Amino acid sequence: MLLNAKAVLLILLGGGPTIVINATWVGILQAALRLGVKRIYGSLFGVLGIAKEQFVDLTQLSSEELKLLAGTPSAALGTTRDMPDNAAMLEVIKAHGITHVIGVGGQDTAETLQGIAVFAQAAGYSLCVVHAPKTIDGDLEVGDHPPGFPSAARFIAKAAAGHNLENAAMPGVDILGCMGRNAGYLTGASGFLRSYDDDGPHLIYCPERALDLKLFLDDVDGVYQRLGRCLVAVSEGVKDSDGTLWVEHLKEVHRDAHGNVQLSGSAVVDFLASEVRKRLGVKRVISETPGYLQRCYDEASYVDEQEARRAGEAAARFAIDGQSGSVVITRTGEYEVEYGLVALEQVAGKTKVMPTHFINEKGNDITPAYVDYLRPLLGSFPKYARIKLPLVEKILNR
Amino acid sequence: MLLNAKAVLLILLGGGPTIVINATWVGILQAALRLGVKRIYGSLFGVLGIAKEQFVDLTQLSSEELKLLAGTPSAALGTTRDMPDNAAMLEVIKAHGITHVIGVGGQDTAETLQGIAVFAQAAGYSLCVVHAPKTIDGDLEVGDHPPGFPSAARFIAKAAAGHNLENAAMPGVDILGCMGRNAGYLTGASGFLRSYDDDGPHLIYCPERALDLKLFLDDVDGVYQRLGRCLVAVSEGVKDSDGTLWVEHLKEVHRDAHGNVQLSGSAVVDFLASEVRKRLGVKRVISETPGYLQRCYDEASYVDEQEARRAGEAAARFAIDGQSGSVVITRTGEYEVEYGLVALEQVAGKTKVMPTHFINEKGNDITPAYVDYLRPLLGSFPKYARIKLPLVEKILNR
Repeated sequence: MLLNAKAVLLILLGGGPTIVINATWVGILQAALRLGVKRIYGSLFGVLGIAKEQFVDLTQLSSEELKLLAGTPSAALGTTRDMPDNAAMLEVIKAHGITHVIGVGGQDTAETLQGIAVFAQAAGYSLCVVHAPKTIDGDLEVGDHPPGFPSAARFIAKAAAGHNLENAAMPGVDILGCMGRNAGYLTGASGFLRSYDDDGPHLIYCPERALDLKLFLDDVDGVYQRLGRCLVAVSEGVKDSDGTLWVEHLKEVHRDAHGNVQLSGSAVVDFLASEVRKRLGVKRVISETPGYLQRCYDEASYVDEQEARRAGEAAARFAIDGQSGSVVITRTGEYEVEYGLVALEQVAGKTKVMPTHFINEKGNDITPAYVDYLRPLLGSFPKYARIKLPLVEKILNR
Repeated sequence: MLLNAKAVLLILLGGGPTIVINATWVGILQAALRLGVKRIYGSLFGVLGIAKEQFVDLTQLSSEELKLLAGTPSAALGTTRDMPDNAAMLEVIKAHGITHVIGVGGQDTAETLQGIAVFAQAAGYSLCVVHAPKTIDGDLEVGDHPPGFPSAARFIAKAAAGHNLENAAMPGVDILGCMGRNAGYLTGASGFLRSYDDDGPHLIYCPERALDLKLFLDDVDGVYQRLGRCLVAVSEGVKDSDGTLWVEHLKEVHRDAHGNVQLSGSAVVDFLASEVRKRLGVKRVISETPGYLQRCYDEASYVDEQEARRAGEAAARFAIDGQSGSVVITRTGEYEVEYGLVALEQVAGKTKVMPTHFINEKGNDITPAYVDYLRPLLGSFPKYARIKLPLVEKILNR
């Protein structure tokens, strides 16, 4: 504890916010305090705070403030996607006598942290660097899943269930665009709450498989002919048969009335909707993109909140024990998890796409195996009902 | 009760679904059963079910099914915006000996119901017609607010609070498009959860006031210069200084059977975002449109659930008492409501825009009076916190 009292810990957040990232840094802070660390700084706006020497003293926060902060969505310390110069950052780290850095983020943040660690080592400065996982995309290379994913998946599951009921009440084709650049975990979660055979999403397209426009239209037409309606979930990162992002095709062709290229996240679903309207002659076609609500709407999974905090606590323990690396969550039993540590380079910059057995053969749906994977993560849901009654006998029968 | 036993009640839903419309028709059904009505039909897909003679016998539903249905989002009987021929509908109504029609919907549904009532009367057929209110837009001509609005407003309040935290964590300009054709009640609800002085939305544009592009850009620029970020909420129904819908400038217009321009889609916010990017040179500009999630995401206000059911019960009582009209909710005290009845023509096809004192003078924000109006309707929310700490003293101070 005497040694720990001399530690200077810097906490920073990286990449897109989540609903539970604040629970992670609060977990880091509280575990570090319990381990006897006296100086704990928060870097404002991620690594930018290092470059700009903008730190706050997190030990000044009261336990009441910490309790509220842990339950507040988004990143209370601010975050960034920028990567400042390592030399400039190390200068500030040295000046403040920082001995430990813990960064909460995804694969890009892990890469940035690895860069700092390598640079410090080359400069002969002793610095312990730990990465605490976070990403709504669920696509970190090592571990069962990162904190942030279960809550985002819960939001998408509920959003898709709502759209399914909406689509059943006012039939047509409804295309829902979900986040996920390279991996379909989040888009796939749209199928979690299906209970009746004809519940939507009826089609789910993940970035792991090519979205061929002709096959897509055939799929939609088939469902629409069969059920009189169709709900589709599509990842924003879907690619064509040549592996080119669909959105890259559309930047050239999708323009607003002023001739400006439409840059919003809805380009792909809007395009697919217009194709359905044009090629299939469906009258009522809707395309929607929940966007940042997937990571900022306060709909936390309880499991996620718990794990986010514990992943932070584990990160603090590893760091104060002098171990650098990336914290990973391993699933054990039905359902428990363990928090381990792997080398930063095992996670840095890498993406784990969905395994083959989570996507069906045709590449237009998830499998029951993926639903089983999600089940312990998303929390409980109300049960929805539908009316299953025969028609009253017709009298006029026109 | 002997007379009631001979009544044949038809329930139908109209217009866009809400989170609580099922609570209303379950309320109608259960109250009618208690009043001794033996035959209660549900019309499938609103008035289309009358034209197509597609009814189900709602008395066959178990109390367990009704409990689950009342808590299920969207319209379990299906709904429509179509307006079938009155003569064809009356023929079916007569054939089935229907004595009472209760329709749950907004001003357009009230108009359709009024049409049926007038046609039946002219044809000498005795038919009691009651309208039970429902619309997420909150803009029925009579009454404090309709069921459906409080839950949708709750969703928008939470969505905006999430976007505010997101915008604070990764600063830029964020433009959130909210539903609201003619009235800004829903868009205005985006400001409900602001607690700190600099919380967003920093600007709120409702359809009651013209959105002048130059003034809009000046407003955004002012906030951005002051805070380094700006969250804007804009109604999809905003008009330019000439009273023309902005969406009509931007895209091919589709209309429904009531002649309403289809507003769904991100055209307006995407356009405004591109203008901010181009004219103000802001790098990080986001535009988002939650869309149908505003009426299908399961985020019910408890008050709304209660009122939706009670409005349905009141509609059944008025109808079985032989009174035609539209049920209205009146606010009494802090906070209670009463359920009354007004003539159908007082509500049919009419829209109540926001009163002047709910929008600020510049037309770019709501007033505290509007927040007071919303307070009893939206339910309770978790308290969010932020870090308010001084910067740690710089050492390098570059």
